[in-house]
Amino acid sequence: MEIIKTAEEMQQRALELKRAGRVVGLVPTMGYLHEGHLSLMRLARKQCDVLVVSIFVNPAQFGPNEDLEAYPRDFERDEALCEQEGVDLLFYPETENMYAGDASVRVDEDALSGVLCGASRPGHFRGVCTVVAKLFNLVQPDLAVFGEKDAQQLRIIERLVRDLNFPVGIIRGPIVREPDGLAMSSRNKYLSETQRKNALCLSRSLEQVAELFGQGEREAMVLREAMANLIRSVPEAEIDYIEIVDDTSLVTVDEIRNDVLVALAVRMGDTRLIDNLVLRP
Amino acid sequence: MEIIKTAEEMQQRALELKRAGRVVGLVPTMGYLHEGHLSLMRLARKQCDVLVVSIFVNPAQFGPNEDLEAYPRDFERDEALCEQEGVDLLFYPETENMYAGDASVRVDEDALSGVLCGASRPGHFRGVCTVVAKLFNLVQPDLAVFGEKDAQQLRIIERLVRDLNFPVGIIRGPIVREPDGLAMSSRNKYLSETQRKNALCLSRSLEQVAELFGQGEREAMVLREAMANLIRSVPEAEIDYIEIVDDTSLVTVDEIRNDVLVALAVRMGDTRLIDNLVLRP
Repeated sequence: MEIIKTAEEMQQRALELKRAGRVVGLVPTMGYLHEGHLSLMRLARKQCDVLVVSIFVNPAQFGPNEDLEAYPRDFERDEALCEQEGVDLLFYPETENMYAGDASVRVDEDALSGVLCGASRPGHFRGVCTVVAKLFNLVQPDLAVFGEKDAQQLRIIERLVRDLNFPVGIIRGPIVREPDGLAMSSRNKYLSETQRKNALCLSRSLEQVAELFGQGEREAMVLREAMANLIRSVPEAEIDYIEIVDDTSLVTVDEIRNDVLVALAVRMGDTRLIDNLVLRP
Repeated sequence: MEIIKTAEEMQQRALELKRAGRVVGLVPTMGYLHEGHLSLMRLARKQCDVLVVSIFVNPAQFGPNEDLEAYPRDFERDEALCEQEGVDLLFYPETENMYAGDASVRVDEDALSGVLCGASRPGHFRGVCTVVAKLFNLVQPDLAVFGEKDAQQLRIIERLVRDLNFPVGIIRGPIVREPDGLAMSSRNKYLSETQRKNALCLSRSLEQVAELFGQGEREAMVLREAMANLIRSVPEAEIDYIEIVDDTSLVTVDEIRNDVLVALAVRMGDTRLIDNLVLRP
């Protein structure tokens, strides 16, 4: 495995690979890798000749009061994990190398970005779209894998690819969960032992919704109330949002007639956790 | 010469060319080609194996009260001119093929776009940046040529390439003028015979500034006043702006110490014309 530390070197290698007709797969990450990330690498590995993983904690997608500084980092561990997964190129640039001091071009999405996490994190998806456009231009991937855990991000990136005509196939990687059901996240590290147990309310509320839906319930309000009741009973848990939205447009749904995305964000103390599932009637 | 009418086909061809190691040059245009466009093609032709010209009147860069519908079009003539210039691929897509009905991703530049033409044409450079990003992804050029006539656009596109890391070399094509000095433009077609004569006030005011600058004048206000006086004496001419700005930051300059861009926009009746020059102290 080769570690590439500058954008210039990454792009030069990428263009050489393209000319050589190699199929390049990209898994963009912010590091502090867990089994969820590794599952994305395995998905990419199967479909490409050259597997590129990027590790870059992107300042542009953090708000002023968010956890940019505190975001967990452990490059040596990440490097070992990438090596184990057969990664070919590990792209690990510095912030100053990725963004000019007077950077002024941004990529914005304005139909899917205002709801769910976008409502609580203004500017977040602008930061995501911008860095993903940059990574696509630097790595020139034929395919890129993004996790379904970040459901809204995934749909926005699919839109980015369509609307700006990036020649990149987007592959959706299923959510990977801990044995008890908690969706894997680098931010789980922030949780105290008690919070870690209480954090199960996210996945449990989704299981409950799936069950009610299986029994025929189609009223979004009923399903959301059931989730809210479960989460409200948990100490420290504070609901950021619980939404049931059309799976494509992300518009709020009253009665479920087409595929919907059930998504929630809950604060456990200072830590904001998200989870979701898709219901298909 | 081959005419390609869909984005899908263009991108497939572009990726094949990339894999074959061919150097691709792009000249993006809105058609109604004149000698200025042809000079850009000749510049590109010298440096590439495969010359692609795009003709697309991009609705996203026209304001609601601008001349989108009236913008002159003559595909057959354009086709013949491209053929003469040795163009290999002429990309000529329909609007519906370029933009999905629910397109929601946009590329924005927010340091250089608010002044000069950006002040009179809100949203214009967002439309330009978005379509150029799309064209770069569809044509995958190694180099692209843009004219210095659109000085602000050129600098914004250089910024776009830098900030989103497009692997595209931008080449600046000098302004091409009619024998009497009028900068070539597809919009010159709108001018009546009298307006056509009066339109010389743009290039004449720039010649005057160059002369004063050559004599040692460094006060921007003095130079701008000289331009304004010349133009105000011309019937029908209405000044949109006359600006002297830093050539890189486009920030207004009082005393000229570094390279500056002298840019102006003047309405002749319903027709808005632009011109510019760079002064290097």
